[in-house]
Amino acid sequence: MSAVPMSQSPVFDLAPWSQNHLARVEQALSQWVGHGAPAGLGDAMRYAVLDGGKRLRPLLVLAAYEAACSGGTGAQATPVLADAAIRAACAVELIHAYSLVHDDMPCMDNDVLRRGKPTVHVQFGEAPALLAGDALQAFAFELLTPDDSLIPASVQATLCRLLARAAGSAGMAGGQAIDLASVGVALTEDQLRQMHRLKTGALLQGSVLMGAVCGHAAATAYQALSDYGAAMGLAFQVVDDILDVVADSATLGKTAGKDAAADKPTYVSLLGLERAQAYAQALLTEAHAALVGSGLPDTRALAALADMVVRRSY
Amino acid sequence: MSAVPMSQSPVFDLAPWSQNHLARVEQALSQWVGHGAPAGLGDAMRYAVLDGGKRLRPLLVLAAYEAACSGGTGAQATPVLADAAIRAACAVELIHAYSLVHDDMPCMDNDVLRRGKPTVHVQFGEAPALLAGDALQAFAFELLTPDDSLIPASVQATLCRLLARAAGSAGMAGGQAIDLASVGVALTEDQLRQMHRLKTGALLQGSVLMGAVCGHAAATAYQALSDYGAAMGLAFQVVDDILDVVADSATLGKTAGKDAAADKPTYVSLLGLERAQAYAQALLTEAHAALVGSGLPDTRALAALADMVVRRSY
Repeated sequence: MSAVPMSQSPVFDLAPWSQNHLARVEQALSQWVGHGAPAGLGDAMRYAVLDGGKRLRPLLVLAAYEAACSGGTGAQATPVLADAAIRAACAVELIHAYSLVHDDMPCMDNDVLRRGKPTVHVQFGEAPALLAGDALQAFAFELLTPDDSLIPASVQATLCRLLARAAGSAGMAGGQAIDLASVGVALTEDQLRQMHRLKTGALLQGSVLMGAVCGHAAATAYQALSDYGAAMGLAFQVVDDILDVVADSATLGKTAGKDAAADKPTYVSLLGLERAQAYAQALLTEAHAALVGSGLPDTRALAALADMVVRRSY
Repeated sequence: MSAVPMSQSPVFDLAPWSQNHLARVEQALSQWVGHGAPAGLGDAMRYAVLDGGKRLRPLLVLAAYEAACSGGTGAQATPVLADAAIRAACAVELIHAYSLVHDDMPCMDNDVLRRGKPTVHVQFGEAPALLAGDALQAFAFELLTPDDSLIPASVQATLCRLLARAAGSAGMAGGQAIDLASVGVALTEDQLRQMHRLKTGALLQGSVLMGAVCGHAAATAYQALSDYGAAMGLAFQVVDDILDVVADSATLGKTAGKDAAADKPTYVSLLGLERAQAYAQALLTEAHAALVGSGLPDTRALAALADMVVRRSY
């Protein structure tokens, strides 16, 4: 079942848009990841990244990039900027993929199944998994700073800045540390929100902002996209908590019910299922409102991605 | 005992220079690392970075920066460029520190002693150690891309590019992967050299190049500094292999003899002690020659650091 009941029909057909953009992301990832790495390491890196995942973060980068380009004060889409956006899309996915590799390791969640496949440490061993994750993080920043491109240095530097902050101790890694320290601990709603803002929200919001930078979004639009990213990012986690309860492992492609089993605080344990669903819906409304307030003429893909985040069933 | 016998008296007194520059690096690291991170994570990050280490990589950044600034075609030292150099110095140390944290973990070298202290996973647990390493890598790129500074975007982007390449699959992480796959394997001297070029050489050379970029080195000087970095970086590893055999654990501050115990190929196992010492000396001569060829008026700190690398006893 989907996390939150459908209440309106989509105004934009996301499927062909996603298919088209995913194809470009998959091609770029396949072309770039693991090449030039020693064989064993490159294999583990490619295994961790290719053939799997919803690619939500790359799609957010590309949707935000196109939305920004649609604005009169933003840049027109050009091959150079499109290259920047594809690189940013791949970079956020590399950070996401590395975090999953490390998160699945025995000393963390000790998970053996991811996207329906054995996790990287099960397939390659723990030490190669650790190194592959480390190398994927470095490669994300390498992708953002090509030396043979016309991407302006200011764009390259800003993308690195946004990605580093989203991935680091005041972002994803920081959220994971709070998560780790929260097992069996009673969190308030504020504390839970703060944990998720960092753990998953920072990189989702960062994806939107990196797309906005590639499309040279003006200040007002940038702030609105930032608000969109914050609401959508939090909604993603609320829905994740809901799905951990209502979906089964086969649908999720990972172990269901593991948060409850691990005695981790979730939105469902804190608010109950119905209020958690209502909260996800409210965040979706907030995300849509931010897009309307952005002044950008075409934010349909971003709107549809937020819908998908809240209404997904896995 | 030192790795290679002294053959000439130093032409530059490194001690006061190092003391002065180390103080700036320590102050900057202490000011920056771990702040804004959740408490547990920040503590582990600071533990991994502060109060220890020779800080060779930061000193190489600062020495290369000053050498580049001394060139007529390079930049004059300014507060902005000095800030860039200090940030680069800290960033390379963060990458080095994170690699040690992960390298010491049970699934890698399983080492309990580092710089005379319990390793991070012994002190904080494996999962926090994993996350602290991950967060330190991200923070390195964050330090290079401040949004409230006058450091030119082109310098920021170039520093990120150099650091990502030095740290990633075609650099440090790649070398570690080869190392991991080489236990009990008979390597040729070429293969051993390639492993070390990546594993330790890439970040040492990267440190020199990052300093050169901060000082706006001209092309000829940049290439010469690159050659210096390659020779010095390889010498570092040859000497490491020598010290693993001739020094004791107390002097090293880490477990001695562990390469031989782990049946890892080393320069000593491949060449024998005397030829390994002669090779280190030849690389030192090569490093000095590169500095002479750089055309830079003042490369004394770099020369003295190369001397130190080869003549150190721990």
